[in-house]
Amino acid sequence: MLFENISILADDFTVKHGQYVGVKADKIAYIGSERPTEDFGETYNGKGKLLMPGMVNAHSHAPMTLLRGYGENLSLQRWLNERIFPFEDKLSDAAVAPATRLAIAEMLRFGTVSFTDMYFFSQTMADAILESGIKCNLSRGLTVFDDSDYEQTAAYKDNCDLLARYQNAGDGRLKIDLCIHGEYTTTPKMVEAVAKHAKQVDARVHIHLSETQSEHEECKARHGMTPAAYFEKLGLFDQPTTAAHCVWLDDSDFAILERRGVTVASCPVSNMKLASGFARVPEMLKRGIHVALGTDSVASNNNLNLFKEMFLFANVYKGATHDPTVVTPAEALAAATVNGMRSQGRDDSGLVRVGMKADLAVLNVDEPWMVPVNDWTTNLVYSAQGSDVCLTMVDGKVLYQDGEYKTIDIEKVKFEAQRATDAIRAQL
Amino acid sequence: MLFENISILADDFTVKHGQYVGVKADKIAYIGSERPTEDFGETYNGKGKLLMPGMVNAHSHAPMTLLRGYGENLSLQRWLNERIFPFEDKLSDAAVAPATRLAIAEMLRFGTVSFTDMYFFSQTMADAILESGIKCNLSRGLTVFDDSDYEQTAAYKDNCDLLARYQNAGDGRLKIDLCIHGEYTTTPKMVEAVAKHAKQVDARVHIHLSETQSEHEECKARHGMTPAAYFEKLGLFDQPTTAAHCVWLDDSDFAILERRGVTVASCPVSNMKLASGFARVPEMLKRGIHVALGTDSVASNNNLNLFKEMFLFANVYKGATHDPTVVTPAEALAAATVNGMRSQGRDDSGLVRVGMKADLAVLNVDEPWMVPVNDWTTNLVYSAQGSDVCLTMVDGKVLYQDGEYKTIDIEKVKFEAQRATDAIRAQL
Ligand SMILES: [Zn+2]
Ligand SMILES: [Zn+2]
Repeated sequence: MLFENISILADDFTVKHGQYVGVKADKIAYIGSERPTEDFGETYNGKGKLLMPGMVNAHSHAPMTLLRGYGENLSLQRWLNERIFPFEDKLSDAAVAPATRLAIAEMLRFGTVSFTDMYFFSQTMADAILESGIKCNLSRGLTVFDDSDYEQTAAYKDNCDLLARYQNAGDGRLKIDLCIHGEYTTTPKMVEAVAKHAKQVDARVHIHLSETQSEHEECKARHGMTPAAYFEKLGLFDQPTTAAHCVWLDDSDFAILERRGVTVASCPVSNMKLASGFARVPEMLKRGIHVALGTDSVASNNNLNLFKEMFLFANVYKGATHDPTVVTPAEALAAATVNGMRSQGRDDSGLVRVGMKADLAVLNVDEPWMVPVNDWTTNLVYSAQGSDVCLTMVDGKVLYQDGEYKTIDIEKVKFEAQRATDAIRAQL
Repeated sequence: MLFENISILADDFTVKHGQYVGVKADKIAYIGSERPTEDFGETYNGKGKLLMPGMVNAHSHAPMTLLRGYGENLSLQRWLNERIFPFEDKLSDAAVAPATRLAIAEMLRFGTVSFTDMYFFSQTMADAILESGIKCNLSRGLTVFDDSDYEQTAAYKDNCDLLARYQNAGDGRLKIDLCIHGEYTTTPKMVEAVAKHAKQVDARVHIHLSETQSEHEECKARHGMTPAAYFEKLGLFDQPTTAAHCVWLDDSDFAILERRGVTVASCPVSNMKLASGFARVPEMLKRGIHVALGTDSVASNNNLNLFKEMFLFANVYKGATHDPTVVTPAEALAAATVNGMRSQGRDDSGLVRVGMKADLAVLNVDEPWMVPVNDWTTNLVYSAQGSDVCLTMVDGKVLYQDGEYKTIDIEKVKFEAQRATDAIRAQL
């Protein structure tokens, strides 16, 4: 495909106009202000459009779409015990399949090309991911209290199956990560076993870290160290790790994340909605810690729209620190795109650059809420809406365009997701 | 017009399905689950749609659309002195006309039917408002340091002209309020004069109140009382007043707002972006203080999208108070709709109820990000996007539908807004 005469978010986060972008197979093969001599097949009229790297959701629990709007305005304990856990207890593969497809549809609609997910029913999820064409670093949730033998756990067996069957499936679009749900839902022995397993198979790791104050403080009381120090000591950070939230880090934790290259998956909406607090993102950015963006689950969001998340990322830490100079538009765009790709081990994607994978989003920018243009990058972060996305492409394939989902039967998925939700709620 | 078989947000903030809503002239004349016998003319197929009260932007500076994305990541003083004031200094009626039309287009696109505005070039704004069909409570900004005689000020003369020519123009769609920009930009003598003037002509009042900590504390140092106490003492609150922001209220201020029936126009995005702080909205709601929602200007937002504002309103105070139970979806919807109408003295609008003005927004709700439905009201606040609005009606007239602006030549307005912006920036 050849995008003709289109504006692009270039790899220095400035916007260039009147560009030609040629996609060949799964890669960006040409970028220039002159029409290429090579034939790239189908052409796309770029008038009034802007092409940017597709977004990466660095922390999600996709099948929880079914819990959209289920359990609002409750304390965390009541929310978990009265709503989330009982509902999840009734989930099945039959429910998770449409739930995952629905999540993927929402992500594609709003320009997301890849996500890092932690949940259960992973084979069903993997199949839905592969058939959709989206990218994903998928991990099977691991919470465990009997730690007598990791290799006898269902999680270990699932992980072995997943690794054998799905690692780098779909031309590398699907990757299998290992998971520790959190310090408070696992044991030291289990953390060491997963760290060892991750090293053996060279997998990345996905965890929750210091999301709530009580989780953070209870770890310190229990182990005499912060969750970050605890995980580092047990060897978990020897593999590249994505740590969701990181709201309650101690000062000493910053150095740990920095030296271990841990990516913080910041989830501004979820942290507000669950009243977890405001992460110290400006300090992280200042130190050069990798920060990416996640939605967390629909239950605590209630969308999978990274434009909303990016807008919040650029605003909320200004409010929380009383400093309007923190978090620049370029930092917000990087967090939503290339930093997420790097956290997934996808150094071949996340920028509009020749040789990179064609994981792209195209936006309608000739809209009243994007006019006038004083600064393009600022308009993208502060004024663009997720709904401005009119085309989402992964590995050179169009997966969403102008209301059509190319790989998802959206009417069927919506129907099945509602039916599965109703069936579960009828049992509660 | 007859909306057939549509879901509605009823006046108790629950959603009812399969309704018929008949609009006759400027009013809602019929609501019921059976097809009315009366002929309402044109029919609208409500399948997959939800009809709700149009939204009210309770605090804006509409012509500042031209400053979209101009001046980011600056301290408040640098932002004002290096960006906002020099740009505004170059504004003219010729620039304000397309700027105002652009603001109205964005508001209509995202379901806003009325706004409360404070700015200059008011006659130009009034003409743009009237021709667009939107509702507005318009006030001419008043900042003054020479207070020798209010009746000799340009503001007084403008206000007299505005009141004579525009009060209740357009069948009451346009109302003229009086304005005190803020305590720190006016003098006690001037506040008293405006209070007296407002009483004489029975106008409502629009002010900024305790937006920043320094403004609030400096007033206490200067006058020995908070801005709210100061305005009350000078008689300004004897007329119904909309007070924007109210971030830094003292405990004693709550009782003042309560007994004077002052409406707080909360601006969550602007307060974050300018790092003003988090208003104590949950306490206001608990006390029964009227709280409405505003965008403030595009320069500190950078949109005029009340769905974004409502989403933030429902989330950010949970984060700021560490309490996920505060601000319910119904409270957020009321703030965005009927509370705004009441703050404008429009008790005849803001609810889907027979006899009320037909000031309505229709949303596409059969979308992946609105499925499944566990709770409709929650989905409207947390999952709906401003871009889901497919029809906006004011006084029974369709002003926006499916990408078309019925009263605005949108291509011309976008062109003129960009040209005016470029011309001003060329002089800076
Ligand atoms: Zn999570
Ligand atoms: Zn203001």
